[in-house]
Amino acid sequence: MVMNSTPGDGVEIYGDVEVSLVQGVGNDMSVITAARVSTMGERSRVGHGESGAKGLINFLMRERHGSPFEHNSMTFFIKAPIFVFREFHRHRVGWSYNEESGRYTTLAPEFYIPSEGRPLQQVGKAGAYSYVAGTPEQDRVVWDELHATYVQAWQSYQRMLAAGVAREVARLSLPVGVLSSMYATCNARSLMHFLSLRTRDERALVKSGPQWEIELVARKMEAEWAKAMPLTYEAFNNNGRVAP
Amino acid sequence: MVMNSTPGDGVEIYGDVEVSLVQGVGNDMSVITAARVSTMGERSRVGHGESGAKGLINFLMRERHGSPFEHNSMTFFIKAPIFVFREFHRHRVGWSYNEESGRYTTLAPEFYIPSEGRPLQQVGKAGAYSYVAGTPEQDRVVWDELHATYVQAWQSYQRMLAAGVAREVARLSLPVGVLSSMYATCNARSLMHFLSLRTRDERALVKSGPQWEIELVARKMEAEWAKAMPLTYEAFNNNGRVAP
Amino acid sequence: MVMNSTPGDGVEIYGDVEVSLVQGVGNDMSVITAARVSTMGERSRVGHGESGAKGLINFLMRERHGSPFEHNSMTFFIKAPIFVFREFHRHRVGWSYNEESGRYTTLAPEFYIPSEGRPLQQVGKAGAYSYVAGTPEQDRVVWDELHATYVQAWQSYQRMLAAGVAREVARLSLPVGVLSSMYATCNARSLMHFLSLRTRDERALVKSGPQWEIELVARKMEAEWAKAMPLTYEAFNNNGRVAP
Amino acid sequence: MVMNSTPGDGVEIYGDVEVSLVQGVGNDMSVITAARVSTMGERSRVGHGESGAKGLINFLMRERHGSPFEHNSMTFFIKAPIFVFREFHRHRVGWSYNEESGRYTTLAPEFYIPSEGRPLQQVGKAGAYSYVAGTPEQDRVVWDELHATYVQAWQSYQRMLAAGVAREVARLSLPVGVLSSMYATCNARSLMHFLSLRTRDERALVKSGPQWEIELVARKMEAEWAKAMPLTYEAFNNNGRVAP
Repeated sequence: MVMNSTPGDGVEIYGDVEVSLVQGVGNDMSVITAARVSTMGERSRVGHGESGAKGLINFLMRERHGSPFEHNSMTFFIKAPIFVFREFHRHRVGWSYNEESGRYTTLAPEFYIPSEGRPLQQVGKAGAYSYVAGTPEQDRVVWDELHATYVQAWQSYQRMLAAGVAREVARLSLPVGVLSSMYATCNARSLMHFLSLRTRDERALVKSGPQWEIELVARKMEAEWAKAMPLTYEAFNNNGRVAP
Repeated sequence: MVMNSTPGDGVEIYGDVEVSLVQGVGNDMSVITAARVSTMGERSRVGHGESGAKGLINFLMRERHGSPFEHNSMTFFIKAPIFVFREFHRHRVGWSYNEESGRYTTLAPEFYIPSEGRPLQQVGKAGAYSYVAGTPEQDRVVWDELHATYVQAWQSYQRMLAAGVAREVARLSLPVGVLSSMYATCNARSLMHFLSLRTRDERALVKSGPQWEIELVARKMEAEWAKAMPLTYEAFNNNGRVAP
Repeated sequence: MVMNSTPGDGVEIYGDVEVSLVQGVGNDMSVITAARVSTMGERSRVGHGESGAKGLINFLMRERHGSPFEHNSMTFFIKAPIFVFREFHRHRVGWSYNEESGRYTTLAPEFYIPSEGRPLQQVGKAGAYSYVAGTPEQDRVVWDELHATYVQAWQSYQRMLAAGVAREVARLSLPVGVLSSMYATCNARSLMHFLSLRTRDERALVKSGPQWEIELVARKMEAEWAKAMPLTYEAFNNNGRVAP
Repeated sequence: MVMNSTPGDGVEIYGDVEVSLVQGVGNDMSVITAARVSTMGERSRVGHGESGAKGLINFLMRERHGSPFEHNSMTFFIKAPIFVFREFHRHRVGWSYNEESGRYTTLAPEFYIPSEGRPLQQVGKAGAYSYVAGTPEQDRVVWDELHATYVQAWQSYQRMLAAGVAREVARLSLPVGVLSSMYATCNARSLMHFLSLRTRDERALVKSGPQWEIELVARKMEAEWAKAMPLTYEAFNNNGRVAP
């Protein structure tokens, strides 16, 4: 992760998120095998090789036969700001989460400030927003304001803890830009649904306007998944990036 | 809601949450009718009156026949701090949410500070925490620190917005004690599961240690549900407050 | 329901399914209100009238903002053959079921045979099947064979019961054409997903090839829903009958 | 599988079900790691060895902290009668299914008849049924009636197919005792919920009365899971076989 520490004030500033694939099972052939049980029953268990795999996966994706894409599993470790996890946890189906708890642990002094390149201005009207680069002045304001708020919030948090206040109360001061960690488990189908909403992509049939930071997470997850299930990934892109 | 405004600094302080039942359908008899379709099929549609309703509902609860408790719906409007909604949204099954978005709207300067009576000290060891009243000094520290952080965070937010920074970026400064609003829809079964985890109750077979503030929300929801489905509510309490 | 009893052999033949709306809550305005909480927070609770409702619902449908369509509930009573319920129960999310149990009740001698007009021949190749009218000979074979099997199965079932065999064992003889009853509860979003897969419609962006009989059920549910939420229904049709 | 073919009549009779573990990922240590992220955040990724694993898993189970048990996956191939799959598919959460389709494939002439040892008589009253051994006469009636019905149904199915009737129509004659195949994917938490309802066990805090045949499936799944996650399995049994 990009980290820009600021010695002396006690907080560490990050400009990126972190994603790693912890464990996984299943691949393109799991999709094929699960789909074949529908048409071949018990005989589906006999190996059929990869011939026709690409075409069948593309057919399933195009026709929105979603269930064969569920017989696999990926567990990710994700480190990102709380406002990203707030959006993430709205994905209910096919997702399992365990996130760091501010009740049971003292959070670390790690906060997120957008890096260079992250558009800072919202333009357009409600329902059709887009984002463009900030001015140098805006870059400076964002850094200064967020940094000052993070330092104040962190010191407040520390003072409350030092006074013997419960962690679950002291944490109320922490801004949604503070970093947290979680394990998230999904399958290819639930991941595709997530990606369809949380990435901005030319190939998408239905355009989405995710916040920059959750797309950072989404793209790193997408890269891992693409390696694990290349034929499924290709079919997803070739069919408008709509979850089947 | 309790509100303690502090004229002059631009922020409003709340010491409570708000819950109201927006709409609902189904009642104790819906549970009965749905259960009877299992044993009577089409004949279940003929009215049977309320005789035996209490006993049947108690039987279903005790034996954990959960599905008859799903054929009803309650929609709540809830106003509470973000840290409460963070816990709330971990309930995935049988719940629907729409929450105020800091991307599409400028949040209001409304923040939560614990009221008198809210225990401020965590005692005991990991896995078995309990909470006791704070000292007057702790009361003061919590108010002072949270209030100062809220004012700083709000002014930072305002300055970033004034500089033309996108709402979705400016909001990073806002602490998890800021208030938000949402609609939440559930059914009696998913609500019971929520209540079993988010209330602390003598009658509970499995003890739970929810954070004070989400229990404030849970208890207000429970009160509305108790009026709508009194027999189900009674059976829930009489059978250890475990979701069937 | 169409019923063609055949006096003397003990079984009753049905050529249709039955659907009725038992209870419901929520309407087009519930969609609006839930959507507005995202952009207006607490102020969403102030009434806004219906002006703009149609446009907003169409926008939500087109952009696949699905969650506002979940704050409503419909409970249906459905009487249909077991092979229809087998397909129905594959819909997991946003659905609640209670079905007549062959373990707890003795099933009624009611069976389904396709009515005139139901296509009996499958043509085309795997993945692109369509169905065309049967020949008079096929009509006759289907009636004769199904009727004979139903009579045999029913009499077998009765003989096993008469011999003191448990209902859960005796029922093994009953064919998937036997009728059953259930309560099914859903919301507009889960219903739209069901309809997108279980109807064959010119307006659908993604074509589906459901079995005739589950489409009979789906169309009757659709008719009830169209009355309850006309603007949402119109937007569903105008946007390719894809669940948002 | 036990198979008792009956040469000459075209049908094959099975007296058992078949379950095999196709693939899996995750183990007891995945539970530990996911739980530790709640209390240790990023530091949870550093290995901690197995010391304390047993105690922590037992604690999570007893206190009903369920989410750490979701970061794993098991895919099973299951061959069983349709009436078993009917019950199976009522499990909606944390389960993925692909089953052989009678619309896309011609089913095989394989049917289930209870083996010796399967209790055939239901005793007791509604809500508290139990099952005891059948008399020799009942054994004979069950075999004779089911076998005769299966032969008749199968021959009817064959005659309709031979007449050019679509498979999806011809299959209406097939009884729920016909065998089918499916892939089912779950995680330890959803499997525990399944086992709590679909096994009859001395150690269960909440008694359940599953049908014999789905317990045959459940017990075979349980045996595979016990090998993959022995500490979790032990904690499940030691805490009343209730899903956390």
